[in-house]
Amino acid sequence: MRRLSLSAIRELSEQVLLANGLAEPAARSIADVVTRAEADACRSHGLYRIPGYVAGLRSGRVDGQAVPRLEPLRPGLLRVDGARGFAPPATDAGREALVAATRSNGIAAMAVVRAHHFSALWADLEPIVALGLVCWCFVVGQSSVAPHGGTRRLMGTNPIAFGWPRSGRAPFIFDFATSAAARGEVELKRLAGQDLPSGWAIDPHGLPTNDPAQALAGALLPFGGHKGSALSMMVELIAGPLIGEMTSRQVQDLKIADGGPPPGGQLFIAFDPSGVTSSAGLIAETFFGDALAQPGVRLPSTRRHEARRRSATEGVEVDNHIYETICALML
Amino acid sequence: MRRLSLSAIRELSEQVLLANGLAEPAARSIADVVTRAEADACRSHGLYRIPGYVAGLRSGRVDGQAVPRLEPLRPGLLRVDGARGFAPPATDAGREALVAATRSNGIAAMAVVRAHHFSALWADLEPIVALGLVCWCFVVGQSSVAPHGGTRRLMGTNPIAFGWPRSGRAPFIFDFATSAAARGEVELKRLAGQDLPSGWAIDPHGLPTNDPAQALAGALLPFGGHKGSALSMMVELIAGPLIGEMTSRQVQDLKIADGGPPPGGQLFIAFDPSGVTSSAGLIAETFFGDALAQPGVRLPSTRRHEARRRSATEGVEVDNHIYETICALML
Repeated sequence: MRRLSLSAIRELSEQVLLANGLAEPAARSIADVVTRAEADACRSHGLYRIPGYVAGLRSGRVDGQAVPRLEPLRPGLLRVDGARGFAPPATDAGREALVAATRSNGIAAMAVVRAHHFSALWADLEPIVALGLVCWCFVVGQSSVAPHGGTRRLMGTNPIAFGWPRSGRAPFIFDFATSAAARGEVELKRLAGQDLPSGWAIDPHGLPTNDPAQALAGALLPFGGHKGSALSMMVELIAGPLIGEMTSRQVQDLKIADGGPPPGGQLFIAFDPSGVTSSAGLIAETFFGDALAQPGVRLPSTRRHEARRRSATEGVEVDNHIYETICALML
Repeated sequence: MRRLSLSAIRELSEQVLLANGLAEPAARSIADVVTRAEADACRSHGLYRIPGYVAGLRSGRVDGQAVPRLEPLRPGLLRVDGARGFAPPATDAGREALVAATRSNGIAAMAVVRAHHFSALWADLEPIVALGLVCWCFVVGQSSVAPHGGTRRLMGTNPIAFGWPRSGRAPFIFDFATSAAARGEVELKRLAGQDLPSGWAIDPHGLPTNDPAQALAGALLPFGGHKGSALSMMVELIAGPLIGEMTSRQVQDLKIADGGPPPGGQLFIAFDPSGVTSSAGLIAETFFGDALAQPGVRLPSTRRHEARRRSATEGVEVDNHIYETICALML
């Protein structure tokens, strides 16, 4: 491990992306989400992803020069065509319009399509929540999760993120895969030579396994049995077909072998908490207070925000192997 | 057990509510959701709830003569003031406006406030999905669920429902408590003298229990660990504070002892699938086809729809004790 400052991580990320033909605004957008993931100790979405971003560019599958296009569809509905580029610059292109539509309509949605998504959803919605809106975000990935009762891959890890703004405090944000574990977590277990906990995955024959390699060859399982499976299907429907995008099976059929981010859709829904009442924030704080009065209870984003406070001054530990891999991609 | 036709269940429900001072439109709305729950073998929301509805009326806590009032707030945002009546007539009062707002804006939300909710969410959203819209529904109940890591009640069982319309087929609809089990399920176990599965609940000391009575005195647990707990908190926030309504703790503090439905908020969000693409339905059907090609996989509402086909001709089995209790409430 080596210690790097956040600005060194940002610089490293941006330079390696620029060196591989990514346009400057997109490189800045991605360096930002990568750096924020490292700052929050969310390693599975940090520098670890850089080789994948580069693979997408080098294979020509992702257009490094793509210019996202914002299309208003209805008063509360926007689409951003990512034009075969990466998702973070596409989200950046639509954010302001989504916020404006939410304020005027009370609720609004933004569909990001034809974009290659590889970042953490909390990072995508945090800037919207920071403007005082409640926000959800959903994305479909490559097929890797078997439905409850099933034996083979059908859904992606299909994460759900939700953010609630808190005046003068870090927002309440959660972001989790609807699989028992994210694919990145399984890959990190494999790299570390560790077994998987039971209930995470099945092997290629549809039988339970604790072996990360067998899990990656077989299928992950949804979290929480049939309920998590239903939520995973919901994400598949609303971040896929609902916005004219592919299901994770259709993405899988593209047989992407370069390790880069798959194409697909992403759905944002935002709600203006001043729409119904001026006291939403106050009532919510009594709820958060009641929650934190129970020892043992933590709000979802607490660990990330603690890491963020530390990393701002101390920087973060980066795995030497990942660091050297990225440096080699500069050439 | 005795066998009753659906029309007999509808008639019984309506008559007992009318006999206890409920206005006719509200009695029809509630008889409808009760009958549909029995038709779908969803007993915990069927006739079993009638004594509770009557208790709310007899105690004077619920206004049987309430006239719900619809208030447009922003182009995509409506509020229905239930005026201290039951929720089903309030939802009926806003449905048409929600559908119209969704079609013109692409997405819209309806907050039902100051209403007493006791029905199943799938029954609330089914008429909206039947009109071709994607729909979510969320409701906050009385505090009965401990957060992940906690030792006492904080959230309600806070269900989430989602519906996706399917052309020429029964819709894809799920509706589940974000607790490991619904409170009604625990009460049915208690009435049947059965143990609870592990992981459903903790006792008043915060320790795991399999005893339904201890669970009802203690707290239920969220499904799916910290992820289900986060979803439960989300429901608490969006069907409570976000729409100017109480949290489940605040409802609990009202110390409702009559067994009737608690007051509180309910949030609907609807999305027009023709908003982004005309092919949402077609792409979704490939997904459903892929799902059902795996033996062992069932779509969420299958069991309900099978029961519905049977009960239309055969009627349903009703517990004698519940039947006699309801008949006694007619006096």
